Amino acid sequence: MTHAREILDTHPGTVGLDAAALVECIEACFDCAQSCSACADACLGEEEVSQLRRCITMCLNCSDVCATTGRIVSRQTDFEPAMARTALQACAEACRLCGEECEHHGREMNMEHCRVCAEACRRCEEACSQALSSIGG
Amino acid sequence: MTHAREILDTHPGTVGLDAAALVECIEACFDCAQSCSACADACLGEEEVSQLRRCITMCLNCSDVCATTGRIVSRQTDFEPAMARTALQACAEACRLCGEECEHHGREMNMEHCRVCAEACRRCEEACSQALSSIGG
Amino acid sequence: MTHAREILDTHPGTVGLDAAALVECIEACFDCAQSCSACADACLGEEEVSQLRRCITMCLNCSDVCATTGRIVSRQTDFEPAMARTALQACAEACRLCGEECEHHGREMNMEHCRVCAEACRRCEEACSQALSSIGG
Amino acid sequence: MTHAREILDTHPGTVGLDAAALVECIEACFDCAQSCSACADACLGEEEVSQLRRCITMCLNCSDVCATTGRIVSRQTDFEPAMARTALQACAEACRLCGEECEHHGREMNMEHCRVCAEACRRCEEACSQALSSIGG
Repeated sequence: MTHAREILDTHPGTVGLDAAALVECIEACFDCAQSCSACADACLGEEEVSQLRRCITMCLNCSDVCATTGRIVSRQTDFEPAMARTALQACAEACRLCGEECEHHGREMNMEHCRVCAEACRRCEEACSQALSSIGG
Repeated sequence: MTHAREILDTHPGTVGLDAAALVECIEACFDCAQSCSACADACLGEEEVSQLRRCITMCLNCSDVCATTGRIVSRQTDFEPAMARTALQACAEACRLCGEECEHHGREMNMEHCRVCAEACRRCEEACSQALSSIGG
Repeated sequence: MTHAREILDTHPGTVGLDAAALVECIEACFDCAQSCSACADACLGEEEVSQLRRCITMCLNCSDVCATTGRIVSRQTDFEPAMARTALQACAEACRLCGEECEHHGREMNMEHCRVCAEACRRCEEACSQALSSIGG
Repeated sequence: MTHAREILDTHPGTVGLDAAALVECIEACFDCAQSCSACADACLGEEEVSQLRRCITMCLNCSDVCATTGRIVSRQTDFEPAMARTALQACAEACRLCGEECEHHGREMNMEHCRVCAEACRRCEEACSQALSSIGG
């Protein structure tokens, strides 16, 4: 349960993109920011940590980009489409790269946290793409 | 829907505090980080923005503290209770201060986004207090 | 004085882009993240806050993007050019948009903090462009 | 070179604590946020990464706390001493814990990036303590 929808519905201004796509994008970004931080940490705790370096770096980067993008699209006062567009593009790309890396370890190394994290990444990549479409990006 | 519980359950190590309290704390921190960013933005869009300065500053500060605390407690590899304790204390205090400010504007100025944000703050303050108890803080 | 150069020089691996361009980019990103947070706050304290809404939103967004990009380019273990490229593009664009907005208020409204913040934005936009060139972006 | 002092000097309001202590604290927080991100990354690239798990977790936590604290003290509009106090206490503690861990690896394992990072941590711990004194914390 999050409060994203309720706060958006009480915003004094008009919203710069489709509200349903926006709420899903906000929630997916914050969820993915958390999942990627947690997956980087779980990878660090694995015995085979030295084989998970790329995955850890990807997760740390993706977590930062998702947190930033979730905040940017949450800001609807004087919403600037050019700003949202470049952030959403970076976020979709970060999620694609991190999702592929995590999926690979989930399958090849049986890393369950990577498999779950890949799910969060794919959901977020999709939500960013939808939000991009709704602002003409 | 978040992936916090699933990733925690697949962590290779042992978890440094009660798992249910931890998941609630993680989810409350990320939700409150989002709510406070969105409430600061909604306040900025209000006609009476000049009366909402303290609320905006509180929300920006609380959003940052919640995002940081949500990440810190998500990290369970070589979990250090002293680190978690000081972060959770700061987060509970930030949520208390921001929640009081938002509740005030929700009631006195009929700001619905402030009323919703106060809910997110109180949930997070409570979750941080519970997590603190579970690590003996 | 920062420790960016010293830590980079002691990194166990090879660095994925020109080291001088990288250090300047890291320092410019962290400086701009701070300047934009401080300028948003100073704008909020101005009597004419209602005319500075767009500037505040731009500064908050730019601060988040710069902090994230500064961290991403600081990570050189398993450096992924595609990740750095999309982050640097978003950062250059955020700095361009925010720098233009701040410069405008610095000139038209005599807002000194906006004038200084525009300087930090332009420096960071330039540093991101240089870093992009050095990774072929 | 940072723009922290210049923006602070042009703030429309009064500053809630000693200006010199504040600028040093802001700069030390952002420098330490960067150093800790870079040191976590350098540790991850070391052959002995499995012996550096605690150091990586400490650095990631410290980086987040420093970035958040640097922003909170940068916000001087409706400055709330209780908020600054709890953030500065968390930051001083994070820097103390991370600085000790890094210093240990710098000495025992000849990790130069840890030695440099310990310097950034100690500077930031000291700056937070000074800022705390100046607000009566």
